[in-house]
Amino acid sequence: MKLHWSPRSPFVRKVMIAAHELGVAEKLTTTRTLVGMELINDGLLPENPLNKIPTLVLDDGRVIYDSLTICEFLNDMAGGGIFGTGAARWEVLTRHSMANSFLDALILFRHERARPAMQQAPGVLTAFTTKTTSMLNHVQAPPPGRADIGDITLAVALAYLDFRFADLGWREGRGALAEWHAAFSTRPSMIATTAVDG
Amino acid sequence: MKLHWSPRSPFVRKVMIAAHELGVAEKLTTTRTLVGMELINDGLLPENPLNKIPTLVLDDGRVIYDSLTICEFLNDMAGGGIFGTGAARWEVLTRHSMANSFLDALILFRHERARPAMQQAPGVLTAFTTKTTSMLNHVQAPPPGRADIGDITLAVALAYLDFRFADLGWREGRGALAEWHAAFSTRPSMIATTAVDG
Repeated sequence: MKLHWSPRSPFVRKVMIAAHELGVAEKLTTTRTLVGMELINDGLLPENPLNKIPTLVLDDGRVIYDSLTICEFLNDMAGGGIFGTGAARWEVLTRHSMANSFLDALILFRHERARPAMQQAPGVLTAFTTKTTSMLNHVQAPPPGRADIGDITLAVALAYLDFRFADLGWREGRGALAEWHAAFSTRPSMIATTAVDG
Repeated sequence: MKLHWSPRSPFVRKVMIAAHELGVAEKLTTTRTLVGMELINDGLLPENPLNKIPTLVLDDGRVIYDSLTICEFLNDMAGGGIFGTGAARWEVLTRHSMANSFLDALILFRHERARPAMQQAPGVLTAFTTKTTSMLNHVQAPPPGRADIGDITLAVALAYLDFRFADLGWREGRGALAEWHAAFSTRPSMIATTAVDG
């Protein structure tokens, strides 16, 4: 299987962490695919017309995305349990949605902050600041030792905060969450997928 | 069940169409909840810290989102078949992801176009134009009569194009897709959820 991949994409990282947790990472052949808000990758468009990574291409040519669908496909293939079953599934998926929407918001927030000052919308910046605070105050530190798709996505989002929003100081007053993230970050799946410059 | 709702949100419409298709629409008590890119709704934040609709609140207080998770919850509750099973599931979910990412892009595109000229980023506008064309050229007209979660989301996205991007003339040169959308739009679920001014 070919995975359109980039070392710094948090959504790619989510898939790679899930693959490591499920023991199927070695089945993925990663190919570096550069995309961006203003960077269209003509080689990717035939497989994903919205220009997004991760995108998974199976050996028979079938294409699977987005990151959540890929993670569930890998979970199914591996006979894993990172999505929960029965009533637990909705709780896991809602925690996933929260962390994933947070990541979406952070990526837009980052783009807004990176614009030339004249192109920035003050109302947008204020709203993103409010949502970031609201999310961090709302989210509970998960129980230790667990690594479902909600936990994985939360860990990726907090790591992305460290990577792109170090100035926010998200740990301040959030000791339990910071402690959970520090412990989660020692998992082999997290260490194997740490973004490196390059 | 309480659904945080708005008549013009395409993601809310997706949930309402799915509910109608599954025969469970009457189980949803809709409550109008205004949100926007720059409009934080303080009443929603305790239930969804990212300020997004749709958000479903069950009678026992459990909260479920985003739109995809709500649709799958309703499908499960109704014993429906709009997600597919086995290998079909990944195909359905990937078509859903394509249409849903398209909607995400269109909403950002609309916000970018609505900014004061000086705050617009030309590179962002160009990239959104490219993605819109790429998506419309890539997507296949689904078979007639079917209404899975991929079809529903595609129909919502094309209706959103008519609503907010009438100038794009998306039907031109895309007769099969236009014909499919016209037929799909006559479904009771589509008619019951048409956005009205108000």
